[in-house]
Amino acid sequence: MNDAREVVVLRYGHRPGRDDRMTTHVGLTARALGADRVILPDNAGQSAETVRDITDRFGGPFAVELRDDQKAIVRDFEGVVVHLTMYGERVQDVEAAVREAVGLDEPAVVGEASPPRDLLVVVGGEKVPWALYERADFNVGVTNQPHSEVAGLAVFLDRLFGGAELDREWADADRRVVPEATGKTVVDADRDSADASDDAAGEGDDAAGEGDDAAGESAGTDDRTETDDRTEANDRTEADDCD
Amino acid sequence: MNDAREVVVLRYGHRPGRDDRMTTHVGLTARALGADRVILPDNAGQSAETVRDITDRFGGPFAVELRDDQKAIVRDFEGVVVHLTMYGERVQDVEAAVREAVGLDEPAVVGEASPPRDLLVVVGGEKVPWALYERADFNVGVTNQPHSEVAGLAVFLDRLFGGAELDREWADADRRVVPEATGKTVVDADRDSADASDDAAGEGDDAAGEGDDAAGESAGTDDRTETDDRTEANDRTEADDCD
Repeated sequence: MNDAREVVVLRYGHRPGRDDRMTTHVGLTARALGADRVILPDNAGQSAETVRDITDRFGGPFAVELRDDQKAIVRDFEGVVVHLTMYGERVQDVEAAVREAVGLDEPAVVGEASPPRDLLVVVGGEKVPWALYERADFNVGVTNQPHSEVAGLAVFLDRLFGGAELDREWADADRRVVPEATGKTVVDADRDSADASDDAAGEGDDAAGEGDDAAGESAGTDDRTETDDRTEANDRTEADDCD
Repeated sequence: MNDAREVVVLRYGHRPGRDDRMTTHVGLTARALGADRVILPDNAGQSAETVRDITDRFGGPFAVELRDDQKAIVRDFEGVVVHLTMYGERVQDVEAAVREAVGLDEPAVVGEASPPRDLLVVVGGEKVPWALYERADFNVGVTNQPHSEVAGLAVFLDRLFGGAELDREWADADRRVVPEATGKTVVDADRDSADASDDAAGEGDDAAGEGDDAAGESAGTDDRTETDDRTEANDRTEADDCD
């Protein structure tokens, strides 16, 4: 999102089948909320495919990597490492220090501005080795309550970027959702307004329905009638996700 | 979280099996980030059980309901209805209006303070009827990108409460995580400090591991050695979650 530094989200651990949707949501949340890249374990190929597909259709830049060397990635990362964990320091207490460490905030001392540094945000899956707690520059808890790694990542990124991630623009998108008080409008991304022809709007809406479903949100056009029509692509995604 | 108004999260739609973990995470995120109650579809009994179990152990107050009349709940809700959807207005554009509508913000006009009103936050699952878009006082998009309903709920609640939800205190908890720069410390909730005996700390850590796992985060004590020891309770939760 920012040329000065790269923000990378690492999904640490993945259990195929059980974790497919959570890992997909980690990747999609990283993309939507301002990270530049997500690294998934190499057994999470299906999640990677979904996130790449969304990026192809709704824009980037956003990179998706599959890697089998998670320990080495954390150990050798040249930059600041944040580990999100319910055992960590309270996000409201350390977010300013994290921002300053990567050069996103004004420094506490005038004239001591931190240069931009890359940031690795580690999101736990199954087992997380104790070495990760020790290597992390910040172990951060978005509350110290058990809830959801996706929720924790979302709140952390929103606070890291101070909301600026919500205003980012997307390059190379095929389609774009038009924010509306009451409506479901998708247009070709190279159009400036929502005055798409019926045909084009219909196509866009369908496609957004697929993406929406991949993200586990509500389905597309057919919502209005609540019929059970779904594309084959949707059915495949649904069936594969939790097998 | 606040006596003046009730904030209720409604999970709209649930596909047993496929949606179990997402629905559980919606419930746990609602609890952790300041809502007072979650309403789940009546076919999401397993998710309700998990959220109640976490509330029993980590504290409340937080209510979990199973209801089969989602349409009526939305239609008849006496208060403000927010529907989170990628097609909605941008959260950064409408959050002040939502806060003012429920009496959480200073009014734009002096002397015109809004009284506290209850708030229903609707999180889509599978199909969402068009009537929901029409009934909602605010259709809100946490970005207009496809990502995760759990991430959207988390960012919305954090912005609604302006971060105050992170400081809430929990009543009737059995145990409490002590935030630490590097550590995994769980104490009995009625202790004031982290100086638990080895035995008690061990027990607490195990129990937190279960809760942590239920939330899909990293596992408990055994992380330090990365062995594959898991309690039966953990195994049951894992097996049941995605069947």
